[in-house]
Amino acid sequence: MLTVAIPKGALLKDSIQLLSAVGLDFSAFLEPGNRQLQITDPTETAKALLVRNSDVPVYVEYGQAQLGIVGYDVLREKAPNVAHLVDLRFGSCRMSVAVKAASPYRSSLELPLHGRVASKFVHCARKYFEHLDLPVEIVPLYGSVELGPITGMSEAIVDLVATGNTLRENGLIEIDVLFQSTARLIAHPLSYRLNTDALNAYVEHIRSQIKDAIAA
Amino acid sequence: MLTVAIPKGALLKDSIQLLSAVGLDFSAFLEPGNRQLQITDPTETAKALLVRNSDVPVYVEYGQAQLGIVGYDVLREKAPNVAHLVDLRFGSCRMSVAVKAASPYRSSLELPLHGRVASKFVHCARKYFEHLDLPVEIVPLYGSVELGPITGMSEAIVDLVATGNTLRENGLIEIDVLFQSTARLIAHPLSYRLNTDALNAYVEHIRSQIKDAIAA
Repeated sequence: MLTVAIPKGALLKDSIQLLSAVGLDFSAFLEPGNRQLQITDPTETAKALLVRNSDVPVYVEYGQAQLGIVGYDVLREKAPNVAHLVDLRFGSCRMSVAVKAASPYRSSLELPLHGRVASKFVHCARKYFEHLDLPVEIVPLYGSVELGPITGMSEAIVDLVATGNTLRENGLIEIDVLFQSTARLIAHPLSYRLNTDALNAYVEHIRSQIKDAIAA
Repeated sequence: MLTVAIPKGALLKDSIQLLSAVGLDFSAFLEPGNRQLQITDPTETAKALLVRNSDVPVYVEYGQAQLGIVGYDVLREKAPNVAHLVDLRFGSCRMSVAVKAASPYRSSLELPLHGRVASKFVHCARKYFEHLDLPVEIVPLYGSVELGPITGMSEAIVDLVATGNTLRENGLIEIDVLFQSTARLIAHPLSYRLNTDALNAYVEHIRSQIKDAIAA
């Protein structure tokens, strides 16, 4: 049976909506108080796993799910071995460099040599500053990255920004953008090549949904 | 000013209570709807940062906080460069190996060679199986690790177990314990040696609180 890995959190609602448009109903995940992590669509044609955004590529890479929906930021950070198929156009945000508004820095290149940059996206941050040829120390944090500059632990942060409200509330401003991110459809490469469980028909159906939405 | 890094989540309430017993009132963090990540004690003798359990040692290692309260599991997983001072005796849990109750495995050594073990605690899991001389593949997950065996992606998991309810609800059983964990008091090594901001008096006060609690 086709299995789809669906991300909890910000991408959940749009993911369920998109899958429902191609005939897969996993709306049970949206019911208040839902505790199930694994459900079967009422037509019994497909299963869904409800997992963390950052775990989606793991389930797809190991073939436990043939399809997955995940933020592009996770694909950039983890570089998983999955087939990256469709830009789903929802969940827009950007990976940005931010500093205290009161700081003198207005671009990444103005940051001090051997300064510190706090981030949950250690790999993205490291690559970006290497590319700029600016030696900085990346401080790995798991939550509330904005505390880095506030406490003075780091000069800057690299983090996902959607509305910018969190930055504003904490007196931070964006000074550079590493890349734009949206939700993406990914597949287990071998399942995609072998068209396991009629995978390709679902992929094409999703692709045409997105095209129609853009044309509309 | 003395700064203490306090962990969000399961250890928060006991941490605030312990600090209040040594004269530091950070109960504002417990108020419903609190959004502050940084507060000063009403006597203005100390500051507290509210951060993720796994971020506590980062703030202490970089000297942004001189003291911190953190689960022993994090100290084992991250091996941060901090002074590990007092076992605070609350937040008891254990790092365990668990498998599907329906599986044939009843100890770690019965797991199949080159099997898979899903865990958020990649370092702890790897060291444990290396020590057993059992070659396994560690699959890094960030949440709902119990889905590993349920979906068949992994034979086992290594995860923190407190009450065991999550395991039971998911049809898993513990088969081995890596180590017991409790909350620990940690300090920035140099601040501790130099007794910055009368740090040592607080540490001794906390130590005697714990001793009194055990004696009582």
